[in-house]
Amino acid sequence: MTKAKASVLLIGTGGVGTIVACGLAYKNLSTVSVVVRSDYEKVKNDGWTINSVDYGNLTNWKPDNIYPTVEDAAKGQEFDYVVITTKNLPDVIKPEDVAEPAITPGKTTIVLIQNGFDLGRPFIAKYPNNICLSGVSHIGSHNHGGVINQTQGDKCLVSYFDNSNFDKTTQEAKAKEFIELYSNDKNDVTYFADVKWYRYRKLVYNATLNTVCALTRVDTGRLHLAGTLEAVSIPAMREVVKVAKADGVELPADVINTVVHSDDGDWFKPSMLVDVEKGNPIELEVILGNLLTVANELKVETPTLTILYHLLKATQFKLKEGKGLIKVPEERPINDVVYN
Amino acid sequence: MTKAKASVLLIGTGGVGTIVACGLAYKNLSTVSVVVRSDYEKVKNDGWTINSVDYGNLTNWKPDNIYPTVEDAAKGQEFDYVVITTKNLPDVIKPEDVAEPAITPGKTTIVLIQNGFDLGRPFIAKYPNNICLSGVSHIGSHNHGGVINQTQGDKCLVSYFDNSNFDKTTQEAKAKEFIELYSNDKNDVTYFADVKWYRYRKLVYNATLNTVCALTRVDTGRLHLAGTLEAVSIPAMREVVKVAKADGVELPADVINTVVHSDDGDWFKPSMLVDVEKGNPIELEVILGNLLTVANELKVETPTLTILYHLLKATQFKLKEGKGLIKVPEERPINDVVYN
Repeated sequence: MTKAKASVLLIGTGGVGTIVACGLAYKNLSTVSVVVRSDYEKVKNDGWTINSVDYGNLTNWKPDNIYPTVEDAAKGQEFDYVVITTKNLPDVIKPEDVAEPAITPGKTTIVLIQNGFDLGRPFIAKYPNNICLSGVSHIGSHNHGGVINQTQGDKCLVSYFDNSNFDKTTQEAKAKEFIELYSNDKNDVTYFADVKWYRYRKLVYNATLNTVCALTRVDTGRLHLAGTLEAVSIPAMREVVKVAKADGVELPADVINTVVHSDDGDWFKPSMLVDVEKGNPIELEVILGNLLTVANELKVETPTLTILYHLLKATQFKLKEGKGLIKVPEERPINDVVYN
Repeated sequence: MTKAKASVLLIGTGGVGTIVACGLAYKNLSTVSVVVRSDYEKVKNDGWTINSVDYGNLTNWKPDNIYPTVEDAAKGQEFDYVVITTKNLPDVIKPEDVAEPAITPGKTTIVLIQNGFDLGRPFIAKYPNNICLSGVSHIGSHNHGGVINQTQGDKCLVSYFDNSNFDKTTQEAKAKEFIELYSNDKNDVTYFADVKWYRYRKLVYNATLNTVCALTRVDTGRLHLAGTLEAVSIPAMREVVKVAKADGVELPADVINTVVHSDDGDWFKPSMLVDVEKGNPIELEVILGNLLTVANELKVETPTLTILYHLLKATQFKLKEGKGLIKVPEERPINDVVYN
């Protein structure tokens, strides 16, 4: 008797999500369903065109099932896994609410393959009896009008966001079970025990260079030449290291130097700057907002990161307004606050 | 015997400078020479077209003399006054150097009708035996391709930047002598004793709202709605008040409230934001840089203003690069600093 296939629903079929779906389908241990919002009709009919360094050139590629909404996907079935690969913009739409129709309490394992820090918290709060996994993806893959171009191999580190309702062994076993479904001879999907360490390590770059470049609209090379790297980003990095330490995470002694030099030789535009230039809302809350929440809980002072966060709130306001997510009245509302 | 006319050279014939020249010429107590850089041939031949709320519609308007450079203006003559009405961008070109050929040590009075703080310092350092006057202009006037549109009356507060080589009476008398040349029945040019007080008062807006809007690219209304006004600009205002106090200047108790509410009802874009949107370098050094120099001398901590300054240095870098004032090599230079 063959083992029943696991049922997986993937939400978010951008450059990253589509390749994750390919990986699951290629392994063929799960039934792969995806939710496609904007391109549903096209994808339903013709599938995707995928040019992948991992899986070659695929035309009319389709997973097992394609649904236009999460509600439709959840009709009459339960999922073993819900994999979320959307951008994480809780100030626009909360991913734990988006996924809700497809999550069966006590059954569905949630997998967040997304950027950001402390992403598990709202899921564990809302779904205390579900395991929540973490995937940190290193991939170069973009969706250009329905054509997926994957130029860099899919490397993903999988772990779990610790939920005190489960013991660690169970959560680790579940992470490894998901890896079994997703890893194959084309990609590089491995278990990485310390998700907190890893996500702090990423913040040393993302909370300090990604943010400052997004705010000032210069690449990391110009940031250095202007003196802003040393005056703002480096002190911000020291604050990240301090929060990590207070949170029990010891980053390598040379982490700041390594991070600064990671772009050496390139006039590199970090992803948040690219988003600002394209007019897309930025992942401000999951990169800086969540970090400041933890810093506040641990009573660690983060003056530089705090100012960066509040400045970027104005940038984000404008980006959301540009996308029609915020509307301001023609006449400016009265501000009746008295300031001292 | 009629009194000899004073000789005045005005440098900077934008919207403000041209109307100042009109005011001096209208009063007719001085010989008015101007330096016109980019439009010299056109202005030399045809003069200006000026639509002025103060002086009416003038065509082919010319002052007494028009020169293409300061050097040309200074050939064979000395000036009683050199009035500088350019934008003040010492990180691009130092106004005290631009004016140098026309300044006779011990004779020429320098008049700075410019935005910014502590503008007299580099002049007094370079020309210790010359009096340096301050003009704070409140005017709506713009140069649109050689046509001057003055939509708001010329109101100017004149005082002096205190130079310890002169007694105050002498400096005050010189300021009033200049007012005599410039004030007329059309404009509103008056003596205002406390230049330091006044320029600090302006900084409460310019160092905090002008700067933050320039950085985040939102107007003061959206800055309020995004929460950034309260989180960043208000603390920055408190820092300006603190520096002023340490410098012996007591601003009104309600100054912050007054400044915040000065834009009430308008989605107002401060001038520095307008400059950024137009791609023009910003008056960062004379608004924030000079303030931080004084704060540092007085040992007043200004964490918010300091971060804003260093972030805007990156913005300024990009603006200067856009104007060809900075060039970066195609290949990013090696950064061999080790960061800890």
